[in-house]
Amino acid sequence: MDETDPGDFRERVTRSYERQQFMRTLGAELTRVEHAMVEIEMPFNPKLTQQHGFLHAGVISAALDAACGYAAYTVIDPEASILTIEFKVNLMSPGRGDRFLFRGEITKPGSTIIVADGRAYALSNGPAKLIASMSGSMMVIRGREDVTG
Amino acid sequence: MDETDPGDFRERVTRSYERQQFMRTLGAELTRVEHAMVEIEMPFNPKLTQQHGFLHAGVISAALDAACGYAAYTVIDPEASILTIEFKVNLMSPGRGDRFLFRGEITKPGSTIIVADGRAYALSNGPAKLIASMSGSMMVIRGREDVTG
Amino acid sequence: MDETDPGDFRERVTRSYERQQFMRTLGAELTRVEHAMVEIEMPFNPKLTQQHGFLHAGVISAALDAACGYAAYTVIDPEASILTIEFKVNLMSPGRGDRFLFRGEITKPGSTIIVADGRAYALSNGPAKLIASMSGSMMVIRGREDVTG
Amino acid sequence: MDETDPGDFRERVTRSYERQQFMRTLGAELTRVEHAMVEIEMPFNPKLTQQHGFLHAGVISAALDAACGYAAYTVIDPEASILTIEFKVNLMSPGRGDRFLFRGEITKPGSTIIVADGRAYALSNGPAKLIASMSGSMMVIRGREDVTG
Repeated sequence: MDETDPGDFRERVTRSYERQQFMRTLGAELTRVEHAMVEIEMPFNPKLTQQHGFLHAGVISAALDAACGYAAYTVIDPEASILTIEFKVNLMSPGRGDRFLFRGEITKPGSTIIVADGRAYALSNGPAKLIASMSGSMMVIRGREDVTG
Repeated sequence: MDETDPGDFRERVTRSYERQQFMRTLGAELTRVEHAMVEIEMPFNPKLTQQHGFLHAGVISAALDAACGYAAYTVIDPEASILTIEFKVNLMSPGRGDRFLFRGEITKPGSTIIVADGRAYALSNGPAKLIASMSGSMMVIRGREDVTG
Repeated sequence: MDETDPGDFRERVTRSYERQQFMRTLGAELTRVEHAMVEIEMPFNPKLTQQHGFLHAGVISAALDAACGYAAYTVIDPEASILTIEFKVNLMSPGRGDRFLFRGEITKPGSTIIVADGRAYALSNGPAKLIASMSGSMMVIRGREDVTG
Repeated sequence: MDETDPGDFRERVTRSYERQQFMRTLGAELTRVEHAMVEIEMPFNPKLTQQHGFLHAGVISAALDAACGYAAYTVIDPEASILTIEFKVNLMSPGRGDRFLFRGEITKPGSTIIVADGRAYALSNGPAKLIASMSGSMMVIRGREDVTG
């Protein structure tokens, strides 16, 4: 099966995502998996807030990192895995909303380093509001027993 | 009371931290508050892991952001508040350990922008292991009703 | 004259750009100024290279920072000025090419903080090649005598 | 000769630095090479300024990137080379001064990825002033003909 076969990467991403216990803790669901693009959504939850009652920057980072990381999974071969090297997050508006959408997209695929960009949106009545962006570098991992899938 | 009065900033930081519901969700405790430096600690918890069983990068980011943000609180006047503009996280080693320590320190104070750096360590038997670093910019907020304390 | 009047911001950007002596040192020209978007171009020059003969990451950063900063100038009022708070650059491919194009675009305007994203391309025969991206935060400055225009 | 032999890495760093034509264009000199730490210095020069007459952020980035990159060279084996994956720069104070000092230090060595941190200082009469910091990721390159030394 070819590495860009949709069924193949969707299944791999879904299976790996289900092992991310922290995404379950956040109530974050994988809602879209395309070649080089993944979306995650979550409802607002007071347990995920910082001191002013907004969604915590760490929650935004976690969901954006997962969206970017799984976008990277869709462009690698099935035996490889992904580890995040680094990311930067710009917080543009307070994390206020009924729901949140996190989209990760591949800016530059690669055999060792993959560059991904993400955007986070607050969803309420009215148009989606951009609340944060991420730019990150992911490393393609092969042959490490503690880093598979 | 002067802005660098230890009792004053410690009390303000502690009170604000207690309103960060996400820190409670993570099981993260404020363990040290000094002028320009704050430490947070948390035990390992499988609910906070990514797909390989390591502490999720988003958890590391959340605790480092809180440590850096509260370090910023210790150098501002009591009426002001702090919002994170942006941060970058470098993930250096897998988040594996019994406990984790997150230290935030002020690199450059300022009346509008404060630059902070953070380091995350995994603690087990043996020496602490550096697992991540953060560099972030915080904005000092005054006179906004939705951003106080 | 209204702040988004094309003539007005184009003239302000051009006048400020001409005072950037470092852009002249790089041989970098302002080639496009639109609302929220600026492009800069430069030819390859061996004087701007690193040890492997590629365009130096610092040159790429300088031109991307200028493109992002001037994109910010196009969305502020005429009396204000811009200082870069921080930026992150991802270097995706070696800086090899006949010419280079640097585009800065505003992701989030604001009265105090403006977030901009930039992309750098190498131009030779064939399609433009993405070599780097920038994400940066700019501060809107008013009333500081050493930071005008 | 062992990879941490001082003479060996000093010679390699110096030889590679001399091939960085852009450092010569900037008037930047390698002033200190230690294991895991490199310093570069340059005098103020109006040709390197932005629109307000301060040292351009791109010049600061170039020198910090070189200092961090060569700090990485001191911890790799002699046959390997270094490429910068990404860096983030925080600009804390205007680049005003008679001379500037750029120090790069290794935060985390590694066989594939090396994390380095840098600091830039303005030097005039009086104490050195911190003007910028960098945090960057470098990749260790082996066996690529276009990336040697």
